[in-house]
Amino acid sequence: MAGNSFGNIFKLSTFGESHGPALGGVIDGCPSGLKIDLDAIELEMDRRKPGQSAIVTQRKEQDSVTFYSGIFEGVTTGTPIGFLIHNTDQKSKDYSHIKDTYRPSHADYVYDKKYGNRDYRGGGRSSARETACRVVAGAIAKQILSDVKITAFVSSVGDIKINKHYSELDFSEIEKNPVRCADPNTASSMEKFIKEIRKEGDTVGGIVSCVIENTPAGLGEPVFDKLHADLGKAMLSINAVKGFEYGSGFKGTQLRGSEHNDSFNSDGKTKTNNSGGIQGGISNGMDIYFNVAFKPVATIMKAQETIDSKNNVVEMTGKGRHDPCVVPRAVPIVEAMAALVLVDFYLINRTIKL
Amino acid sequence: MAGNSFGNIFKLSTFGESHGPALGGVIDGCPSGLKIDLDAIELEMDRRKPGQSAIVTQRKEQDSVTFYSGIFEGVTTGTPIGFLIHNTDQKSKDYSHIKDTYRPSHADYVYDKKYGNRDYRGGGRSSARETACRVVAGAIAKQILSDVKITAFVSSVGDIKINKHYSELDFSEIEKNPVRCADPNTASSMEKFIKEIRKEGDTVGGIVSCVIENTPAGLGEPVFDKLHADLGKAMLSINAVKGFEYGSGFKGTQLRGSEHNDSFNSDGKTKTNNSGGIQGGISNGMDIYFNVAFKPVATIMKAQETIDSKNNVVEMTGKGRHDPCVVPRAVPIVEAMAALVLVDFYLINRTIKL
Amino acid sequence: MAGNSFGNIFKLSTFGESHGPALGGVIDGCPSGLKIDLDAIELEMDRRKPGQSAIVTQRKEQDSVTFYSGIFEGVTTGTPIGFLIHNTDQKSKDYSHIKDTYRPSHADYVYDKKYGNRDYRGGGRSSARETACRVVAGAIAKQILSDVKITAFVSSVGDIKINKHYSELDFSEIEKNPVRCADPNTASSMEKFIKEIRKEGDTVGGIVSCVIENTPAGLGEPVFDKLHADLGKAMLSINAVKGFEYGSGFKGTQLRGSEHNDSFNSDGKTKTNNSGGIQGGISNGMDIYFNVAFKPVATIMKAQETIDSKNNVVEMTGKGRHDPCVVPRAVPIVEAMAALVLVDFYLINRTIKL
Amino acid sequence: MAGNSFGNIFKLSTFGESHGPALGGVIDGCPSGLKIDLDAIELEMDRRKPGQSAIVTQRKEQDSVTFYSGIFEGVTTGTPIGFLIHNTDQKSKDYSHIKDTYRPSHADYVYDKKYGNRDYRGGGRSSARETACRVVAGAIAKQILSDVKITAFVSSVGDIKINKHYSELDFSEIEKNPVRCADPNTASSMEKFIKEIRKEGDTVGGIVSCVIENTPAGLGEPVFDKLHADLGKAMLSINAVKGFEYGSGFKGTQLRGSEHNDSFNSDGKTKTNNSGGIQGGISNGMDIYFNVAFKPVATIMKAQETIDSKNNVVEMTGKGRHDPCVVPRAVPIVEAMAALVLVDFYLINRTIKL
Repeated sequence: MAGNSFGNIFKLSTFGESHGPALGGVIDGCPSGLKIDLDAIELEMDRRKPGQSAIVTQRKEQDSVTFYSGIFEGVTTGTPIGFLIHNTDQKSKDYSHIKDTYRPSHADYVYDKKYGNRDYRGGGRSSARETACRVVAGAIAKQILSDVKITAFVSSVGDIKINKHYSELDFSEIEKNPVRCADPNTASSMEKFIKEIRKEGDTVGGIVSCVIENTPAGLGEPVFDKLHADLGKAMLSINAVKGFEYGSGFKGTQLRGSEHNDSFNSDGKTKTNNSGGIQGGISNGMDIYFNVAFKPVATIMKAQETIDSKNNVVEMTGKGRHDPCVVPRAVPIVEAMAALVLVDFYLINRTIKL
Repeated sequence: MAGNSFGNIFKLSTFGESHGPALGGVIDGCPSGLKIDLDAIELEMDRRKPGQSAIVTQRKEQDSVTFYSGIFEGVTTGTPIGFLIHNTDQKSKDYSHIKDTYRPSHADYVYDKKYGNRDYRGGGRSSARETACRVVAGAIAKQILSDVKITAFVSSVGDIKINKHYSELDFSEIEKNPVRCADPNTASSMEKFIKEIRKEGDTVGGIVSCVIENTPAGLGEPVFDKLHADLGKAMLSINAVKGFEYGSGFKGTQLRGSEHNDSFNSDGKTKTNNSGGIQGGISNGMDIYFNVAFKPVATIMKAQETIDSKNNVVEMTGKGRHDPCVVPRAVPIVEAMAALVLVDFYLINRTIKL
Repeated sequence: MAGNSFGNIFKLSTFGESHGPALGGVIDGCPSGLKIDLDAIELEMDRRKPGQSAIVTQRKEQDSVTFYSGIFEGVTTGTPIGFLIHNTDQKSKDYSHIKDTYRPSHADYVYDKKYGNRDYRGGGRSSARETACRVVAGAIAKQILSDVKITAFVSSVGDIKINKHYSELDFSEIEKNPVRCADPNTASSMEKFIKEIRKEGDTVGGIVSCVIENTPAGLGEPVFDKLHADLGKAMLSINAVKGFEYGSGFKGTQLRGSEHNDSFNSDGKTKTNNSGGIQGGISNGMDIYFNVAFKPVATIMKAQETIDSKNNVVEMTGKGRHDPCVVPRAVPIVEAMAALVLVDFYLINRTIKL
Repeated sequence: MAGNSFGNIFKLSTFGESHGPALGGVIDGCPSGLKIDLDAIELEMDRRKPGQSAIVTQRKEQDSVTFYSGIFEGVTTGTPIGFLIHNTDQKSKDYSHIKDTYRPSHADYVYDKKYGNRDYRGGGRSSARETACRVVAGAIAKQILSDVKITAFVSSVGDIKINKHYSELDFSEIEKNPVRCADPNTASSMEKFIKEIRKEGDTVGGIVSCVIENTPAGLGEPVFDKLHADLGKAMLSINAVKGFEYGSGFKGTQLRGSEHNDSFNSDGKTKTNNSGGIQGGISNGMDIYFNVAFKPVATIMKAQETIDSKNNVVEMTGKGRHDPCVVPRAVPIVEAMAALVLVDFYLINRTIKL
């Protein structure tokens, strides 16, 4: 109800503010008998963490996870998995400049209107730091879905974009560049551009694309909980996301049915895949692919006019170390959320036939 | 779990296949004391129903709703509102051509893979006829949200689109043309184009835009149930939808933070509204606006190659009376789903402060 | 939330007032591929319906169920099963005497306080007629749980009770007497007593016992959703229920651990069964058994002092045809609710191991 | 689904095993603006903790709670409240005797059957230590329900019981004796009896009664989520509980309607209160009262025959420091669970009228 849980059978609940003592989560419904690969979890955390390259925020957060329950002798027991990610240096910051002032295009104003008070330090609950918990849970979900391959990458930064179909890309390139772009040449342009933007004290948006290979047919529920509806919600729940499209997406609206329809081969696969691997809300076994639009980060190192809690107009300039472009660090978050959606439908699917 | 319910406090559950005896729904959590305006419900049903104009399907479905509970002497009692929409002529159709054959880009194949059997008549549960139930519930939700104004309209059909900001449009034009386009000139072009497409036995996609005025600040929950995440899921759950974007959307990814940020006026309103009325997942009191992408209808009156349930390649041609373009009839559905999202958050909001 | 749904995976939602046009329900999450035995459903309905014997209410309600969805060619499709039970003679009654008067120990007063209005005819939503919908769903649940044997019977009426352990009883006797008592001699005494009570215009309470044989080990979830906690909630949600105990129950509080503990045999079965087939909230494969206490029906044919909605003291006498003792008709309801609890845990159990 | 959450709007999720590094919980949906009284929480924890008197287990667990989120400058923010209760000396125990052996009437056997593996140390997830988390959440719920007075007390131990109506008792006596019995004389007998039982290495059961004063009318939902059904589930979910009855309870089954009905006074209160403050599942403003039956603790200091995981018959004797009678420490748990049920309905009630 209160918006801090995701999933039905495999369910993640998160808690924690960016500058409280810790963030944390509980995974309920993780099947018993899973040998947890802690290194794989750490690897995903590292892909999300600050300070990983020259083009992301230079904050020093260790982001290491401590598990408190649900795993015994390295194996899940079917009981809830509780974990914390301690905030190591949360006390050293000075947040007096945002205590009573609403940063433009941040959540400060609306939290105050909604709740009447807020933990203003570092954005509190609205900080993207919460997504670290999602990455932990997503990394476990991936281990359950060991046959499924979920690959996200940056496909555009500002107006620089990859001009190839995903099938022409070499996904092994993604982790070789700090942008996490699947095309090396485009990656270089993007990296250069992000560095310029940072120098200006500005920020820029971008698009993360995701391809899911080897999904079994039958995932997703009819009507309200269509596979792409839950993927869409999952992605739109990530901080800074403004849009979601799958398969032919917005461009598909311009096509005719005779162009858009995906004909079947005799093996049940389709000749084309405008459907994006999903028909009627249910996976058909073809690749699932979608795009996620991220707006430019709202915190900029330039002076902006805004108001305080008493509606006085004031000027403020961003402090601290922020991302000039959020998409490189968003890649593992997109993958994690996709994994959470899939694992839930995978478990639900065990219950639907006699 | 099984995907047939929507909402948390104000909760709609639907049931029914397109060619069974009836579709129906249950609305649980509708507050007591609401004097139900049956005419307003009927009006919304009429906006969705087949046969309403020359550019939609000419099927004759009456789509009238019968209420069975929850309303006493015209007023809601707080108990669940059960209703049916009878399928009046469901027995007359011949569906032998799709009994064992999978229509391209339809849900036939995936339902069979998922469940092992299916009601193949008219698409069964996967038919967009289910959305009639959503329109009933949405019409009631609108009556609770009497101060909020939800306006959807067609903004593109194929590559014909409105080239104006929504603030320049006269919404009173929408219901004056069969396309439900908010710009009369564009509407004419669209209408002409849809008629051509129909003559060819083909179909085309389009975009429905929606503007929500007069929303109070504070709707939406942090983290997973962000207002735009639930709006996105709601829209993506509508048949044929391929994408969702709000505020600056996909175009916003190309902007810099300094361009994208919405500065506050001293009254708490913002000078610009790239945020689309939502910051950090919570409404800020500005207009909410979003776009919903609809693919071309899959059923075309042209011969297509496909397979049957034994994987034989066969040819099939669509039968019956189908929409050449779904967006004119999708307008009230988009509004209904928006109303369901808003009313739920409106009721949740009553519980969040001491 | 609003209290009209039961279950998580196999989920029943009901709607309808006792004197509206119909009651109904939706079963979501029923697995596909179940060949529905309509006669078995009808049989359970007949066990609950009014007018079945001389010791129950003589109201003439047919209680026949119409299915609208989810079953195709006699087999479930995995989509929601919607159904109605029409109220055939709901218009003929005169309810003016309870329109503004609160019947003692009925729900009239609290519905008014809670909702501000109510459908006063025949108790409206608070009528036990709602349980007919539970019996429909329970009958379907029983068909899924074909190996499990759920047997409820009347074990006491007033202070007349069976003085034998259930293992000494012949369950085939239950349906041979109108009380549904498992012991023929006790049944005769109960029947005679109920007839006397009726003549006096009074009512009496009783206890329904239930034995579940052949349950697999492992049903029930730890901590909050223990098997007996959900069974208890299920039973306590039936109209007129005042108490629930399982296994050794209230008497078990007087025992010592050394007397109460159930030692294992080498086959995993236990020598005794004070645990009632449930340990730590999870079934252990032994018989599950429990007792459900029903208060005397509140509507009596005697003059009672009460108040109206303006707090005037008035006298009222029950009208219509009511049960002098509710337990004979409660037997199939207890079984239905037990089946709903079990089928849900049975389906959940498919998801808990890797 | 997986059974580790309780409540709908005010929702507690718990995690943790008795001998892992910590237990913990997340409270989602706690309204913002509540000034948290940490001392009041600590007080409730102390009432539950081991070692508090000579008649409970002498284990030394500190049971102090650390909050990680949701409270800022001492006031709730509306975001989830995450907390841990560290297990301070969990590494020192020797559990080899239960690693492969199933203790009679414990959950060892069923956890193994259900999940295939288990954390056997100290009962793992099935340990009553989990209830410490409930007491934390309940203590917060009580602070929201500041007008409501929830009082639990021990009313029987073995066959020693209080023979007075609760209205004749002086609740201020409860915390003055280690049994938490509301009658001083009976308390002495109980205390003596428990000490004898302990000397014998045995255990004994008992009953906790609870009275809730000053509840507003209107709490509880119709049909499935009746107030007493949720109270019943809440109580039955506490370790070792075997039964629940409210109002007239099991004894009420022996009464006639003319004796059992509660007549109204002109102020809406009732002359008698067999209904236990609840009619039709909804509170009527009178005192709510109920009894909760606890079985004798299964761990006894006597030799018992049992089996190991390979079905060999073995002998075992309980080790460690266990409660000879659980009811004195169960009193605050019963109150906590009652508070969780009430606060949830209290918040739901804000949403049910227009």
